[in-house]
This record gives sequence, C-alpha cells and structure tokens, in this order.
Amino acid sequence: MDILSRLKAITPHVLTGDDALPYGRDWVGKYETSPLAVVRPRTTAEVSAILALCHETETPVVPMGGNTGLTGATAADGALILSLDRMQTIREIRPEARIAVVEAGVILQDLHDAAEAHGLTYPMTFGARGSARIGGTLATNAGGSNVLRYGNTRDLCLGVEVVLADGRVLDLMSELHKDNSGYDLRDLMIGSEGTLGVITAAVLKLYPAPKAHATAMVTTTGLSAALNLLNALQTRTGGMVEAFEYMPRGYMDNLARFRADLTPPLGHDQDHTIFLEIGSTMLRDCTPDETGQIPLVSHLEETLGVLFEEGLVLDAALAQSEAQRALMWEIREAAAEISTAEKPVVINDLCLPLDRLEAFMDQAETRLRALDPGFKTCPVAHLGDGNIHYTVYPSTYELADPLMEEVEEIVREMGGSFSAEHGIGLSKLPSMERRKNPVALEMMRAVKAAFDPKGILNPGKTLP
Amino acid sequence: MDILSRLKAITPHVLTGDDALPYGRDWVGKYETSPLAVVRPRTTAEVSAILALCHETETPVVPMGGNTGLTGATAADGALILSLDRMQTIREIRPEARIAVVEAGVILQDLHDAAEAHGLTYPMTFGARGSARIGGTLATNAGGSNVLRYGNTRDLCLGVEVVLADGRVLDLMSELHKDNSGYDLRDLMIGSEGTLGVITAAVLKLYPAPKAHATAMVTTTGLSAALNLLNALQTRTGGMVEAFEYMPRGYMDNLARFRADLTPPLGHDQDHTIFLEIGSTMLRDCTPDETGQIPLVSHLEETLGVLFEEGLVLDAALAQSEAQRALMWEIREAAAEISTAEKPVVINDLCLPLDRLEAFMDQAETRLRALDPGFKTCPVAHLGDGNIHYTVYPSTYELADPLMEEVEEIVREMGGSFSAEHGIGLSKLPSMERRKNPVALEMMRAVKAAFDPKGILNPGKTLP
Repeated sequence: MDILSRLKAITPHVLTGDDALPYGRDWVGKYETSPLAVVRPRTTAEVSAILALCHETETPVVPMGGNTGLTGATAADGALILSLDRMQTIREIRPEARIAVVEAGVILQDLHDAAEAHGLTYPMTFGARGSARIGGTLATNAGGSNVLRYGNTRDLCLGVEVVLADGRVLDLMSELHKDNSGYDLRDLMIGSEGTLGVITAAVLKLYPAPKAHATAMVTTTGLSAALNLLNALQTRTGGMVEAFEYMPRGYMDNLARFRADLTPPLGHDQDHTIFLEIGSTMLRDCTPDETGQIPLVSHLEETLGVLFEEGLVLDAALAQSEAQRALMWEIREAAAEISTAEKPVVINDLCLPLDRLEAFMDQAETRLRALDPGFKTCPVAHLGDGNIHYTVYPSTYELADPLMEEVEEIVREMGGSFSAEHGIGLSKLPSMERRKNPVALEMMRAVKAAFDPKGILNPGKTLP
Repeated sequence: MDILSRLKAITPHVLTGDDALPYGRDWVGKYETSPLAVVRPRTTAEVSAILALCHETETPVVPMGGNTGLTGATAADGALILSLDRMQTIREIRPEARIAVVEAGVILQDLHDAAEAHGLTYPMTFGARGSARIGGTLATNAGGSNVLRYGNTRDLCLGVEVVLADGRVLDLMSELHKDNSGYDLRDLMIGSEGTLGVITAAVLKLYPAPKAHATAMVTTTGLSAALNLLNALQTRTGGMVEAFEYMPRGYMDNLARFRADLTPPLGHDQDHTIFLEIGSTMLRDCTPDETGQIPLVSHLEETLGVLFEEGLVLDAALAQSEAQRALMWEIREAAAEISTAEKPVVINDLCLPLDRLEAFMDQAETRLRALDPGFKTCPVAHLGDGNIHYTVYPSTYELADPLMEEVEEIVREMGGSFSAEHGIGLSKLPSMERRKNPVALEMMRAVKAAFDPKGILNPGKTLP
C-alpha cells in the first residue's frame, strides 16, 4: 500500500495535486513549493499515527499552522505538509486559574475573543492574528506588540503536548507555575520551528484585560534619552508600559511619502519620535472623574510633565479620543507598508542590548555609508525589547548582500541577534551559518539528532 | 602524572583529605560523602581545562555553588567537586539596560546589595540568600518568595555561559530580550542541576525596587475564596502582589506550640489565614500624604474593604508599622522551624493547578486519614504559585513512605508536580522514577546522552 493510501486510512482529509498547492506557497510570496500531499488530522492520535507512518517510511514532514510566517519555515518541496488547521478547539478556559487549554490549530484572534468574554486577555498579538494559529506562534516563539509587558510566546506558555518524530506523544501539558522535575523540554520545543516535534496542544496564561489605556506621541533628544524615558516611565507607572515604539526621521520621511494621509501629531520633522501606551486594570485609574477624564490619562500627562522638566521629553501629544489613539497606532502599524514600498530593500529583524541601540544606529550609518554613499534607511523599533526592524535601501541590487552582511556584522560585534522575533526557517539559514556561536550550533545539531534521528521533521530548516 | 597533579597544574586551589570533607556534607545533614578532591577554579578557562581533563580521564565531576540545596544534588562520593566559590565577581551592573553580568560564584545577597545601590532589585530571594550562589540558583531554577510577581530564576535570566562536559565553552551570554536564533539551550541548562554542563556566568534582569509596601493578614472562607481574592487583588492593584501565602489551621496550631512568642494578628483559631504584601514603585503610591499615611497602604485598606463587602475577605489586619510587618513575615518564615519540630515528618514541595488546591487539601485529608487515622499536617503554601509545602506527620515511621506515596499519587492525578522549586537531586529520584511521564524521561535521557556522552557530569542525579 502506498503512503497516500495509508494516510487516507488514518484520516480521509488528505489533499494532493492542485488542492495541495496553496499550502505550498508562503504568505510573503517568496517560496513556491510542491508538497507531496497535505494531511489534515483532527486529533493527537491521528497526528501520532501520521508521524509513525512517516518515520517508518522516512517521509519528510512539514508541520503547518496558519502559514503566516516570514522566513519560509513551511516551504515543503516533496514533503508531506501536516496541517493542524482542523485541530481548532479551545478545550477549556478556566478564569480562576487564568489559563486556556487549546489545540494547536486555534486561530489567535479566536483565543483573544474567548478570553475577552471572561474579562481576560491572551496578550500575544500581531498583524496576522486573524489567520495565525497557536501552534505556529509556539513553534516560532512569536513576538509582537505586547512583549514589553507580557513577554514572548514562551513566557505565556505553561505546557505543551508534542508528537515526536516517531509518533510517541510527549505530554507536557502542565498547568503549573513551578515545576522543577527534570529538564525544560517545553522551552526546547517552543521556537524549534517543527524540527524537534509537532506541537498539538498547549496550556496558555491569561491576564486581566486592561480597562483603560493612555496613549501618546513624544519626542526626545535621542536613543539614550529614550531609554531613560522608558525606565522612568516604567518606575513611575509600576510597569504599565504596553508599547514603546521608536520612529526616527527616516521612518517619518517614508510615512510622508507613502502615507501622506497620516499626519503625526508632532509633525514629520522630528529626529526621534516615540509612540507609547500604558494600560491599567486598576479601578482607580479607569473610572472617569467628575470632568469625564480618565485618571490614567491624567496620570500619564502629569508623568510626562515631570519628565519634560527633567529634560527627557522634548514635546508630547496625548491622545484625547479613541480616534486620536487609532491614528497613532495606524502611524506605527503602517510600518510594513511604508518600509517595503521602495526597492531594492533589505529587511532586518534585529535585537540589541537596550543600551547599545544608539551606538548601533551610529555605526550602521557610518559603515553602510562607506559601502554605499547613497543608501537610505527606514528604521522602526520595539524599543522596549531592543528589537529594531532596520530596513535598508541600497542604491543597487548588487549592494543588497554586502549591506545586509555589514548590518549583521555590527549586530554580532555588539552582542545582538540577527533574528529577534521572526525565527530562522529558510531565509535566515545563511545568517545562522555565519553568525551563530559554533559550539551552540554543534549542540543544537546534537539535540536535533536526539529528537529526530532520521531527520524527517521539517528538514533543512532552522539549522544550517 | 596522576589526576591531582594535573589538576594542580591548572590551579593550585585543590583540596583533598580532611580539607575536602566539609564540601562532601550537605546543608540538611542528610548526605555525608567523601569526595575525591575539591577544585576551586577562578576563571572560565580553568573550568574548561578541568572538565577537559575529567572528560579525558572519565572522572565524575560534581559542580557546587553555595551548597545550600535541599535534595542532595551535590553529594559527591568519589567524585571531584568543582566549586565555583572563587568565581564571585559581579562583572557589570548596567542600570539603564537593567542587567547584571555576574560570575556563577556570586552570593545572592551580594547581588541584592549591588543592585540596591542603583535603586534596583534582583528579586530572587529566599532564606539561604546569604550563602546561596547564583550558579546554584540557576542550576536548580530556584523559586522563593517573589516568584508570584517576578517569576522563577529562569524568568530572570537573559544569558548563561556554560562549560560542557568535554571542556568546550558554550557562550550564551545574551543580554537580549528577544532572540529567536535556534533552540533554547539556555533554558535547557537552567534547572539541569549540573548534569548537562557547568554554568560559569550569567546575565540577569534587574527591576526597579519597590519604594513602599503594604502588608496584611487576612482570613477567608477557604481556598477557592482565597484564589478569588488573589485574582481580585491582582486586577485592582495592577499586578502588584508580591506575596500571597496561605496558612491553614494546622500551620497555626504548630505556630502556637513551637513559637508561642509569635501571636498572629487575627489569632490562631482561624481556618484559613492569608499573609499578603503588595509593593509599588509609583511615586503617587509611595509619598506620604498630609497625615503621614502611605497612599499604598490606604489603597490596600480600601481594596480589602471592597472585597470584604463582596464576601471574599472575612477579616483583615493591616501592618501599621515596620514592626507589625516584620511580625507578619516572621510568622510566615517560621515555617521551616515549626514544620520540622515534630518527628516523624514527611516534607513535600508540591505544585498544583491554582484552582485545584482546595480539592487537593480535601482529598489528602480523606485519603491519608484512611491510611493513618492519627496523621497530622502543617501545610503552608506560596498560594499564588500553586506551590504547597504539605508537611505530614505520620503516627509511626513505618507509615512515612506510604503517606508520601499517597500524597504524590493525589498530586499526579490532579496534574501537579512532586517537585515545585527544590529540584530532584538524589532525594526525589524515586519520585521521578514513579511519577514522571515515561516519554519525557526517555527524551531527558536522550538529551543527557547528547550533552554528556561519558556521563561524567553529576552522575546519578536528576534522572533515575
């Protein structure tokens, strides 16, 4: 019996030929692959049977969630795509324990909605939340806009269920906040891009949903001042900062050119603009006073006033309405659109130590200018995490690789990472080869061999 | 040349015979072992040379920090003890980046003091902080009193430097908040009790130090009400809860018997007492008002008032002075003393899902009573983490094992863990054998074989 027949004996949900092709294309449109087939199991037992079959027949398997990744991690030429999209049950929400128990195929937005119905939030969020699936966010340790306050996906996960390469089920579905019984296999699985096992379910943390926000655009004298501002704000608000995003002049220039409809409250001619938001669950912050003002907004206004006196803030505009708040978010969320509007373009997803971002920006300017006097940039940063998307426009296509190499070299010298939140997949393999600590790479290969001795799980990804 | 001579060629700090014996005794007094020798390197290069030598000669090595562990994880019969106690330099504190770069032998209290000089805190703390060393806290993923707000040691660590079994240095000294470049080897090393490598240095997170605290003893109707109280308090304070400790009547009985000098503000005759503390960095909370009152204390008083109206609180006593606060802490910190004052005693370090603690207490009472009608308990819990130290006094020594087994079985049925914060070492090996998921054990053994193929690192610990 051939493998397709054996797959169909496990589940009838097997796609081949033209039906399988859409799964072979990635969201960015960069990778176009021809999968052997697509199998869409409904249960962990089916996933287990499928992997046991693939293990026996040495068939390469590419696990897939919402297929919204940015690094080609689900490219699948000749491989079986194991789509988790039918495993989309939210098994439990236990509001008192502040946990959700979900299957890997649950769409992120669906979990947001389900938590909200209990006055809670699952704080992981990003642009593709309407199609990204929990399993994919775990496999890539997804970041996003709320990492500063709540952490990456890894920080939000208490337990996972994983099917191993040979079909054994590794049940790590812990609901516990403390568990020191042996090695941390959970965090090894999170972020391993389906190369060590297939995540089929998870226990996730929920938080009380903020009942009020205060939002502002602020200008500062530079990145060091911005970091001091962040620290002062964290101390004075008790860690309420949910967004702290940096948009320098290069970003504002592109905004003016490609989204002239969005006028920044403090104008385009600012060297260093910060977009920030704080959120509170406290009744005393969220109940409007006799004038209808939200105390949290007054609190931010006073705090920024003090920081203005201290010289950390040059100017500030507070959102006085939901419309003004939405405009500020739109200015930040235009990043993908305005930064890819020019070609040729080099996209970067860098992370640096928080207090080295200014030095990075200076060095990048100098060293890239030396290689390409006509280069331009459109940087935008999740500053609170040290995560900068440093988009570069070389003068010519030929200069793209040398400029990217130089950016990565500066990052390496400063103890940074060439992949902050998007992962490795296929597109960052050359960077892994060139920049990752060689002993770390050796030990990652040893781990891979221990979990997937036949190399059937998402072959050719993550490790060069 | 014998191994001792070769060790002395690496560093003169080698102890043998009687000089080595104190290192062979554990802090609890349960394990008395005779090490081959003790070597006390000063640098990572020396650790590397020592491990390369041990690897070549297949000499077992037991890494040791402050030797304050509770599970016999540093017992070392015939093994070389590799003490990190001379590597005690705090290399850097960078207040703007909120990080400390430390060597493994730094004493926890010394890091507390160094952070405090910058108005910051390294929030990991527990009783043995004056002698515990950072390397040991990382090797065991130590818990303690502040986990509810700041997380376990794992959550406080950005990077580690590890020397592998064969002497290679695995440099994971990241200062980054986001880094998705390959597998999470850092978290694999943390909590592995020196069986996968020797941690020689770390990058740790610092936080703004709270400038005011508000502290109270509260009584409730039971554990479910207590969990609701915790959740309400977290929401209303915006996550400021630093301690939320549960002391039922069995605890208060032992307190009355063995520490009659400590009178609980709400008396001994309460079924369910909670000790709680909130902390704030916010100026508005910490600046005394015109009457000299700290606003944070008023805020807690008001909040408890509302929760009293809602029926979540039966009675409450707020600390009105540092002396009253100190008394409340002393009542909680008397746990070690009053719970081990009776014999025979079975000590447990359990973790349960937050909303199953009440069911656990009920079942334990019923099922242990069936085995031993005369048994007594003295439970005390880090309730916010689900971590309960459920101390049991069997009627006879013979009943100790059956009662411990029964407790573990209830915990397993409820999805809990038999080791919340103390780790496995030697003393919990039988529990690992009996209760840990077998597939998880198999994969842990595969990881161990990948990192330490000759099995020289802390042999016989962690994995049964």
